[in-house]
Amino acid sequence: MSDAIRSAIAWIAADWGSSNLRAWAMDADDRVLAEVQSDTGMLSLTPNEYELALLRLIGKWLPEKGQTQVIVCGMAGARQGWKEAPYLTAPASLAELANGAVAPLISCPQLRVSLLPGVRQLAREGATFDVMRGEETQLAGLVASTPGFSGRVCLPGTHSKWATLRDGALVGFTTFLSGELYRLLGERSVLKHSVASALNAADLTQDAHRDAFVTAVKEMSHTPHAFTSKLFGLRAQDLLDSEMPTNPERGTLLAARLSGLVIGLELAGIKVLPEPVTLIGSQALCQRYALALETLGQPSQSIEGEEAVLGGLALAYRALAESPDAATSSNDGVRS
Amino acid sequence: MSDAIRSAIAWIAADWGSSNLRAWAMDADDRVLAEVQSDTGMLSLTPNEYELALLRLIGKWLPEKGQTQVIVCGMAGARQGWKEAPYLTAPASLAELANGAVAPLISCPQLRVSLLPGVRQLAREGATFDVMRGEETQLAGLVASTPGFSGRVCLPGTHSKWATLRDGALVGFTTFLSGELYRLLGERSVLKHSVASALNAADLTQDAHRDAFVTAVKEMSHTPHAFTSKLFGLRAQDLLDSEMPTNPERGTLLAARLSGLVIGLELAGIKVLPEPVTLIGSQALCQRYALALETLGQPSQSIEGEEAVLGGLALAYRALAESPDAATSSNDGVRS
Repeated sequence: MSDAIRSAIAWIAADWGSSNLRAWAMDADDRVLAEVQSDTGMLSLTPNEYELALLRLIGKWLPEKGQTQVIVCGMAGARQGWKEAPYLTAPASLAELANGAVAPLISCPQLRVSLLPGVRQLAREGATFDVMRGEETQLAGLVASTPGFSGRVCLPGTHSKWATLRDGALVGFTTFLSGELYRLLGERSVLKHSVASALNAADLTQDAHRDAFVTAVKEMSHTPHAFTSKLFGLRAQDLLDSEMPTNPERGTLLAARLSGLVIGLELAGIKVLPEPVTLIGSQALCQRYALALETLGQPSQSIEGEEAVLGGLALAYRALAESPDAATSSNDGVRS
Repeated sequence: MSDAIRSAIAWIAADWGSSNLRAWAMDADDRVLAEVQSDTGMLSLTPNEYELALLRLIGKWLPEKGQTQVIVCGMAGARQGWKEAPYLTAPASLAELANGAVAPLISCPQLRVSLLPGVRQLAREGATFDVMRGEETQLAGLVASTPGFSGRVCLPGTHSKWATLRDGALVGFTTFLSGELYRLLGERSVLKHSVASALNAADLTQDAHRDAFVTAVKEMSHTPHAFTSKLFGLRAQDLLDSEMPTNPERGTLLAARLSGLVIGLELAGIKVLPEPVTLIGSQALCQRYALALETLGQPSQSIEGEEAVLGGLALAYRALAESPDAATSSNDGVRS
């Protein structure tokens, strides 16, 4: 890294999840100068290993003098993470995530770290217990780019989130186990014999794969109660259907069907409205959800997940920079 | 074993599944004289290991002279088992399972073995691909004890089966992945942190556990599409609900709820009718399904799974004994 680039780094953005860490060097206008990642996620670290894991990844970005602020979202702020950043409680203003940030104890003089909070939802009329940690920062990024945003947002993934925003605030949300269920069924259940080799292959670019996915989404929309029987039926079809193509095409078709069943069940309860649902996530996953939503007659628009999380982290960085009382850490380990 | 008992053994019944083998020494009136089991299931054996695995378990029952007939149902007759007993195709007469039996090559002079077939269902109007191997023998036992039986039968388990019988014939059936899904979610998903220790503990004898189970069954009946969100909600409740009791009671309540969600989803699509559903399985599982069905207003009656499988194996033994052309194996390895 050239000194010119290093001297242009104004702050560092980090998304620290359960199984990996991504960090971006940002300039004063919140443009990405460099990007790194590692597999040192929350599940593989004890609290006193976080600082070194972070320094190994971004140490080269730190200046010789002065401090650089790192804004972190995700599971590093969980109770079992680096240091707990207690949940905000929904309804919550997404512009004010920084108010809930906490500062872990830091030994390196050039480093300051703020861990952003997640959001919890308590059981009340029309809502049930729920939690998010990381997605709230993506939602904040959406609000930063569209001030006062109102509407439904879906963040597909391991634990897919559906959030309702009103005037830039997170009103409520619901989490679905979809991504984790797809992987468990495809890798660990009796279905693995039919689909395991194709779990990551089904990109739905071919018409036949699209059709298998869309058909399954429709089936779940009409008969969500048939979910577990259709799961077994997928295995039985592999055993008995002489009209299906042979592997690997067969496995890819069945994996597309499995994906359609799981996502279709998630979507089976949505209310179709004229206003588009906003999808935030990887392009491949957003395209798949957009196709499923289109199948049900629900329009959608997509935002790249990285763009959203950087927007939310930048919003928090600005808020912390402007508020001298906000939680940041320095080498004496007390809040500045 | 006394010589008196050994000399009373007329035939041997065996249920050879994916993960274990159970065998019963039967007298001439189809009463059980002795019972043994081992964990040498289909998944742990190659074809030429079956005879020895069987002899290790039941060798002590064989007479010094003459041959004893062993009737086997279950996965030992699968393509990847001892020797394939090809599927019968539904609709199928349950009294005629023996017609589809095959005889594996046998080396021991005192042993004769017949492997009963499973049943497959092909896709047609109102039916989808499906398979069973083992349950058809339990259904045959039901028909043996109630000739001409008509009605709906549920065989709960790893792969729960719902069968429709008419005049003693298996008209059609549907398999649900319920038992496997319950175990996968409880042991391998994020829910394991909440329920893994209590997966086998929830016996629903206490009112609070019953209530948690019944409430979940009702929820699935009304909103089956909410299945994957209610799964995650169970984890969130464990994290956030300050009113729940502490562990281990908390884990047991959540495991009862998980069971209610999975079984409730299976039952969400049933048509409630005045005629009772017949449950065949272990007492604990039948009681759980009976409670779930009662919650939906559906009466049921239960038959112990062992009684049913022995009835079906006995029926096949009689049929093979009376038909000199039926498939049995002897030490020369050709059908007698």
